[in-house]
Amino acid sequence: MALQSVPAERAGARKLSLEEGFSLQFGGELDRLEIDFEIWGELNADRSNAILICPAFSAHSHARSSPENPEPGWWQGMIGPGKAFDTEHFFVICSSLLGGGAGTTGPLSINLRTGREYAGDFPIVSIRDIVRVQARLLRFFGIERLYAAAGGSMGGMEVLELLTREAPACDRGLVLSATARTQSYTATIRHVGRRAIMLDPAFKGGFYGEHPPRQGLKLAREVGTMYYRSREDFNGRFSCAPITTPSLDGITFDFQSYLDHMGNKILTTFDANAYLRLSMAMDLHDVSRGFDSLDQALRRIPGQVMVMGVEQDPLIPIDEQQDLLEALEKAGVRTQWHSLSSPFGHDAFLKEFDWLTPRVRRFLEVMER
Amino acid sequence: MALQSVPAERAGARKLSLEEGFSLQFGGELDRLEIDFEIWGELNADRSNAILICPAFSAHSHARSSPENPEPGWWQGMIGPGKAFDTEHFFVICSSLLGGGAGTTGPLSINLRTGREYAGDFPIVSIRDIVRVQARLLRFFGIERLYAAAGGSMGGMEVLELLTREAPACDRGLVLSATARTQSYTATIRHVGRRAIMLDPAFKGGFYGEHPPRQGLKLAREVGTMYYRSREDFNGRFSCAPITTPSLDGITFDFQSYLDHMGNKILTTFDANAYLRLSMAMDLHDVSRGFDSLDQALRRIPGQVMVMGVEQDPLIPIDEQQDLLEALEKAGVRTQWHSLSSPFGHDAFLKEFDWLTPRVRRFLEVMER
Repeated sequence: MALQSVPAERAGARKLSLEEGFSLQFGGELDRLEIDFEIWGELNADRSNAILICPAFSAHSHARSSPENPEPGWWQGMIGPGKAFDTEHFFVICSSLLGGGAGTTGPLSINLRTGREYAGDFPIVSIRDIVRVQARLLRFFGIERLYAAAGGSMGGMEVLELLTREAPACDRGLVLSATARTQSYTATIRHVGRRAIMLDPAFKGGFYGEHPPRQGLKLAREVGTMYYRSREDFNGRFSCAPITTPSLDGITFDFQSYLDHMGNKILTTFDANAYLRLSMAMDLHDVSRGFDSLDQALRRIPGQVMVMGVEQDPLIPIDEQQDLLEALEKAGVRTQWHSLSSPFGHDAFLKEFDWLTPRVRRFLEVMER
Repeated sequence: MALQSVPAERAGARKLSLEEGFSLQFGGELDRLEIDFEIWGELNADRSNAILICPAFSAHSHARSSPENPEPGWWQGMIGPGKAFDTEHFFVICSSLLGGGAGTTGPLSINLRTGREYAGDFPIVSIRDIVRVQARLLRFFGIERLYAAAGGSMGGMEVLELLTREAPACDRGLVLSATARTQSYTATIRHVGRRAIMLDPAFKGGFYGEHPPRQGLKLAREVGTMYYRSREDFNGRFSCAPITTPSLDGITFDFQSYLDHMGNKILTTFDANAYLRLSMAMDLHDVSRGFDSLDQALRRIPGQVMVMGVEQDPLIPIDEQQDLLEALEKAGVRTQWHSLSSPFGHDAFLKEFDWLTPRVRRFLEVMER
């Protein structure tokens, strides 16, 4: 076990390497674990001020800038002195996702048994596997009780899994735009994206080496992009008047340039094998799995939960957050409910910082100065 | 010009062959026109009882069974003696879509200039082109004024185009689950499907001959399938509990079998080049094109319009039918409005015959016996 620094030019300023086996929920075994993570603020003497930030699908450990990596992080507006997750009070920690491509063990890691990248051989991961890795990191820091855990979308699924399953205990969970169990409609959206990747002849069962299935990955992202923002936002930004003579393979509509841009962006940030596994992890998400009922699972939650939903979320509709809220209340969990109207739809937790900050601070019981 | 019968074992019992040129709205020229159509009921002496049925994307001339083709049609429950479109009162006519693959000139037709199928060379078609072909057929029957024209989804777009643009005049339009102009969000859904087809290496620019891009076409249909029914219906029918050990390329979820079934079905009914062109025609739909405004277009409507929307339609939301209704009223058009709550979502016009029938009959002013 060794805590070491990695070069500052990439997300994830620190890496924890654990030479220990790790069994995955749906089968498969990893011979070692590398955990890419970042920290902000200071852990207090009794280790009682830690907040775990749980990344969403396309996120990673670099939630905020750091001395080693001054690039703004994906939750830059939420973490820092005086911010929602106030680093003057809290020790904030965030690690990249197991099965992803951002430094924590995943398809780009070396498989000790073959001496080559796992690539298409990397097993299916679950939200529970991901959370077990986060818990392992917290144990390394000697944190037995979290002050809070927070995440949006997939991150919110991680928070729920952590609250119901894993040591350490957690006093406050912030579940933003997430769900207790993935519904089939939402899963279908992701399934279709995965099929697009695997349909690309460049995919080659995941063993594409230096030549990733770019077209398939782009198409998967384009399908996803339609569900991140609201329909109203999309229709408001783009008209359907053809901008050139219509053709099947050229740019006919304005929105194609936007999709193209979003699709191209992912080519530099996402490995296709990682995309497939994290996407599948969300579809397999069900906090009640292994319990007799959702109620039984939620009754294990030791602290209180803030649930937030966005009225215009087309990916995980606000009904599912309302269902979660009801189930939590029925299970006797103390809750706080916030609903937001935002054109950013599913992405609101990545955008609406001014709205979120006072609500999160109140929930975290941070006294205003 | 020749009216001839075609063998009864396929949709479209009759064919009109016109050796005349046809210029398309967005460029391109056809040297002749074949129109595949069917008729039910009898045209009266003054030719005043004709109802045009406008097919949706995946439909064709075989809207109802006929002596030549006893197979039930796609609007079997709506057309016939005593039905919504009552063949005891009306002469009902329906032709397959230009640019489609069901007998009317399209990518499967022979290009006289090359002696081979058009395939990937077939031009972009528009809803206006499609309606001009329907109007040409009506002219052949000497019909100068339609009693009514009716269609759902793409068929509703055709009705609007016919009402605002084309001779013959039409006294009653029935526009079900359609829109006055396609919005970019809806277009994106179709665009992504088209990309899936063209991404399939079997596509070969449309010149795939006997080996169509099956995987791409299936994937396009799977994306579409998600928007035909409501989210509630989908979530209610399928759970996300894995039915086997999860894997990326096997069947993990119940809904995959349904998507697979819908995807496979299309392989026998849809030519990929036809799919691309009809899909694109819907995205280019805008009844106001060529006018100064939508209002100016709608003011040309000579008769009254029945507008129907489904509350759970995820493809063309009911807001768009409400917007159309308002615009029609503002333009001084007499309207009838019906909204329906149906788990069938966008597909309700193909399913909710008991609900539709009395409303359509009233709108058509058919006296009950």
